[in-house]
Amino acid sequence: MTPRASSVSSAASASGLVREVLSEYGALALDAVREHLASREPRRHLYDLVTDYPERGGRALRASLCMATARAFGAQQHDAIHTAAALEILHNAFLVHDDVEDDSDERRGHPTIHVLYGVPIAVNVGDALALSSLRPLFVNRFLLGPDLAFRILEEVETMARQSIEGQAIELGWRRDNAIALTDEDYLHMVLKKTCVYTTIYPFRIGALIGTHGRVDVDAFTRFLFFVGAAFQIQDDLLNLIGDKGAYGKEIAGDLWEGKRSLVLIRMLQLASLEERSRARDVLATPRQHKRAEDVAWLRARIDAYGCIDYAQRIAHGLAGAALHEGERLLSILPDSRDKRFLQALPVWMLERA
Amino acid sequence: MTPRASSVSSAASASGLVREVLSEYGALALDAVREHLASREPRRHLYDLVTDYPERGGRALRASLCMATARAFGAQQHDAIHTAAALEILHNAFLVHDDVEDDSDERRGHPTIHVLYGVPIAVNVGDALALSSLRPLFVNRFLLGPDLAFRILEEVETMARQSIEGQAIELGWRRDNAIALTDEDYLHMVLKKTCVYTTIYPFRIGALIGTHGRVDVDAFTRFLFFVGAAFQIQDDLLNLIGDKGAYGKEIAGDLWEGKRSLVLIRMLQLASLEERSRARDVLATPRQHKRAEDVAWLRARIDAYGCIDYAQRIAHGLAGAALHEGERLLSILPDSRDKRFLQALPVWMLERA
Repeated sequence: MTPRASSVSSAASASGLVREVLSEYGALALDAVREHLASREPRRHLYDLVTDYPERGGRALRASLCMATARAFGAQQHDAIHTAAALEILHNAFLVHDDVEDDSDERRGHPTIHVLYGVPIAVNVGDALALSSLRPLFVNRFLLGPDLAFRILEEVETMARQSIEGQAIELGWRRDNAIALTDEDYLHMVLKKTCVYTTIYPFRIGALIGTHGRVDVDAFTRFLFFVGAAFQIQDDLLNLIGDKGAYGKEIAGDLWEGKRSLVLIRMLQLASLEERSRARDVLATPRQHKRAEDVAWLRARIDAYGCIDYAQRIAHGLAGAALHEGERLLSILPDSRDKRFLQALPVWMLERA
Repeated sequence: MTPRASSVSSAASASGLVREVLSEYGALALDAVREHLASREPRRHLYDLVTDYPERGGRALRASLCMATARAFGAQQHDAIHTAAALEILHNAFLVHDDVEDDSDERRGHPTIHVLYGVPIAVNVGDALALSSLRPLFVNRFLLGPDLAFRILEEVETMARQSIEGQAIELGWRRDNAIALTDEDYLHMVLKKTCVYTTIYPFRIGALIGTHGRVDVDAFTRFLFFVGAAFQIQDDLLNLIGDKGAYGKEIAGDLWEGKRSLVLIRMLQLASLEERSRARDVLATPRQHKRAEDVAWLRARIDAYGCIDYAQRIAHGLAGAALHEGERLLSILPDSRDKRFLQALPVWMLERA
């Protein structure tokens, strides 16, 4: 085998391993999520909707990452499963409120909760989901003892706070119709809004469970930021160039919503004065009043300035740095499928469709 | 003094005592709330707004009730202050989301958060407030020990869950444009939406703090339901007949929003078939398309059927039952200003403007 063929084949097997672990842990996490989401009255306007997003079949990335990390650091599966479920429930709470806040039409291939049931009920359903993330964390008191249980509660609180701050930054950009943003602005927002609750804290909390609190979790932040940022940029790219069936949301929905993705920020940096002025007007127009031809024009400017290629290069750079950091940092752990999963994540991030 | 004059004078002094304690504990609670509401970046679209409702000067009824109960049952003030702050922060979180869900225009004499900053930012600010109620409860671990700290976390979780369920019931009525509701439907909704987090749990949690978990808190539920239901009915009445300056919300706002108050439910029960049909159409009309003459017609029908008097009689009956229960149940406690505050609450509920 040539080096190049070997690298392609190892990349393919790395992605295969990630898919295998996600499939296995995702199913376990969904079972635990179901166990913790109460099914009681009132069903029609609350509990039937609380289980809607979780049952749409997300991949449970955050829960799986937490479980794999806990196991790679030495935990038994049952020590991490309730915490993993809590992270997944909280993720779904964020999705319901984010969809209201972004006025998104679709989630996981179906209309969003607020499109189906209206904004008031969607806000309340999101509140119920967020609250439902607490009870599985209370179980930790008996599984892991009160000290570690409180530590995990504090970690989850810090995680959720930073996500809300990241969301506030992004919502502020849209409300102010911000045009002059830098790559650094974007990466700072993504650190807070995406990485913190997608990669950094699921890993931190898993490592705390695996070591019973005896690990310097801060040492992994940079690695996890690289992984999470590559994930978010790839997600933004899939929104523009992905396959709707696999992606589960409308294609170019981010442009309709005026979302400040790295691709859009790059285009605004390179655009002429006249183009930037037109882009400002298009972005300031509420989604329901936007014209398809204006969104198509934004999309064409993105291609004209090579912004897709640019974002792909940044994502690949981040994933490459993550691969390197992951090899180095995780070398302290004994070999295991969970360790190999963690090290393979950056490859999978870029390859997922 | 005649018996009647004595009863009037003791009612006046009972209300005076409640106002005095609310003023004192409310100020302490607001200080604690400020301490726990982070002021950091991003300020403009998040933390400056997180403190907006708390700084508008509510009366901090829930925090004060928790503190007074804790003290009446033997606690020191500092044992309860953080928990009281948590309840007050959570109350403000509910207000922000309720105002979005009800499309309310005003809160505490000023425009609501979503009117000022839009729905997306308001939903995120409500999330930040709800999250901010957790950290003061974590402090209990050091103040009260891990067992009682976890017990209080569980109580707060149960409290918030029931409030969300009550809100779902009310939102469901509006979404379905429910017309044929009974007094029992109303009282069940008020138990879950109002009483649970206004009276029942602030008292329960205070009593747990005061006795270090050694009290049968369920025994007080009926008393607190009576107090809370009288409070909510009076609140609904103030919305119709109150003074806007003192009330802080637009008068008859509930009719504009289509809120199913006891007064409206009574009117719909007594209305003729034609009236009920017109009322159904008016209530089905979104607030921004409602005509002032139709809302005035609803208001006139409420007077025509004596529904204000009816609701006042129910509120007085509940308050009378609460007075009786409070005298009996709280007789186990030594005399204190806090105990007298608790016993005087039903009188104050009806007398507040």
